Amino acid sequence: MRNITADNITDAVLARFAGCDNPRLKEVMGALVRHTHDFIREVKLTEAEWLAGIQFLTQTGLKCTGQRQEFILLSDTLGVSMLVTAMNNQYPAGATEATVFGPFHTEVMPLAESGADIGGDAPGEPLFVNAQINGLGGEPVANAEVDIWQADDDGLYDVQRPELGDTRRARARMHTDAQGNLKFRTVVPTPYPVPTDGPVGAMLVATGRHPWRPAHLHFRIRAQGYSTLITHIFRAPDPYLDSDAVFGVRSSLIGEFVEHPAGTAPDGSRLERRHFTLDQQVVLAPA
Amino acid sequence: MRNITADNITDAVLARFAGCDNPRLKEVMGALVRHTHDFIREVKLTEAEWLAGIQFLTQTGLKCTGQRQEFILLSDTLGVSMLVTAMNNQYPAGATEATVFGPFHTEVMPLAESGADIGGDAPGEPLFVNAQINGLGGEPVANAEVDIWQADDDGLYDVQRPELGDTRRARARMHTDAQGNLKFRTVVPTPYPVPTDGPVGAMLVATGRHPWRPAHLHFRIRAQGYSTLITHIFRAPDPYLDSDAVFGVRSSLIGEFVEHPAGTAPDGSRLERRHFTLDQQVVLAPA
Repeated sequence: MRNITADNITDAVLARFAGCDNPRLKEVMGALVRHTHDFIREVKLTEAEWLAGIQFLTQTGLKCTGQRQEFILLSDTLGVSMLVTAMNNQYPAGATEATVFGPFHTEVMPLAESGADIGGDAPGEPLFVNAQINGLGGEPVANAEVDIWQADDDGLYDVQRPELGDTRRARARMHTDAQGNLKFRTVVPTPYPVPTDGPVGAMLVATGRHPWRPAHLHFRIRAQGYSTLITHIFRAPDPYLDSDAVFGVRSSLIGEFVEHPAGTAPDGSRLERRHFTLDQQVVLAPA
Repeated sequence: MRNITADNITDAVLARFAGCDNPRLKEVMGALVRHTHDFIREVKLTEAEWLAGIQFLTQTGLKCTGQRQEFILLSDTLGVSMLVTAMNNQYPAGATEATVFGPFHTEVMPLAESGADIGGDAPGEPLFVNAQINGLGGEPVANAEVDIWQADDDGLYDVQRPELGDTRRARARMHTDAQGNLKFRTVVPTPYPVPTDGPVGAMLVATGRHPWRPAHLHFRIRAQGYSTLITHIFRAPDPYLDSDAVFGVRSSLIGEFVEHPAGTAPDGSRLERRHFTLDQQVVLAPA
């Protein structure tokens, strides 16, 4: 086909996918082309804007490393991640809700035993978490693999601190016991801005958006026979619960962080400063 | 806003751009969000597909260097580049049509005088180009800056050959003389596949598309008082004129490559092999 115009190019591109023998890929690519072309036509994208878009995408890709995922951050800040999460994780009533994965999970996690202090030397007030993981019928989920990751009191994840090298902290992979229980010590999470030193941060600044997320702990829970749950536990009060930069807050995911004065901690140790406890019930949907 | 659902998230994201004080940026970002969300809803994108998309974009970004622009290649192969080109370059009748820019232009170009052999030692049959650049009223365009770049007989641009290092060939920046004329020797372009060693190549393979482009020379022509023209001159016959991988062929841009037997070339030199000539009229639209 020659002499393609702005009016018939979409059909010309779609026709080019006619030979695709993977029906789902053909469907997704076709829809991607149609919606992308519609976007360009609607805004009458100029060549300078097209080039700015090319440069934005390129810089976003070049910002990615094994420990920094700028495209996930872009997806998060445009509500794409939460949309995909919401569409794909509609669990039965009673099951713990899912929320966004975020860009800071690492597939390799330090293993820890129940009761461990996973915070290491991360700055922050002590937090003792007692999590109980059950199925919808109330049955305990034994030997569930639980990944935990979080920012510290400075609002930074371990992978955002070059000075830590390969050292990981406030991050662990643990397993529930036979009663579906899991305990760990860590630090109290605080609100933090998503990374603003890359193209996505520049987009937030240029569009007048704040980069803050309300304080939270991340969890990914995998267990035989159950749906994998990727979620957060948020802390209240928090100034950003209603304007999370990545649209992830669910009322049902706000945990009860209880303050305690200096004294004996849940693990029997003596603390000279105040500390917090969080008793959290998590309910997994069946696979 | 809390408890955002797949149904109301688009409005929630749009509301977040309310404070953007650049109206055009606000319009473009809003439309981008709406069309992206519509795409995801239409195909019911799964989390695994979302992650595959994140990985595809990341790899596309990481493939980019100063001499390789994989995002432009993606834009080209999805018809986005040609759509933007067609929308933004609707010239009056009589002006030479525009086509896609492609990923192989370099802003730094070797300068050459009219009459030069810009092909260097690039493999290929000799081609003598005599280009006449006029305005719509027939007036010659003196001192126009003309960038020329092309693939060689192996179907490769200089920047695709690591063995060349920083040496450039079959690529030049020249200027028209007082009569709007420009002559150069180069090599005859041949059809070539767009680069298939990256994520875009993998997409073409996975969707059953061929990566070929019909043979062409690239031109970018800039002159005071005229619209900048980015175009190709194609050669016929060519098996890919009707299935250009990047949708760029226009009938009006097919040039007359005339074959000549061994003998005296247009520049007065004696050639022991056949060679080609191309006399090409180019008409620039006013700025």
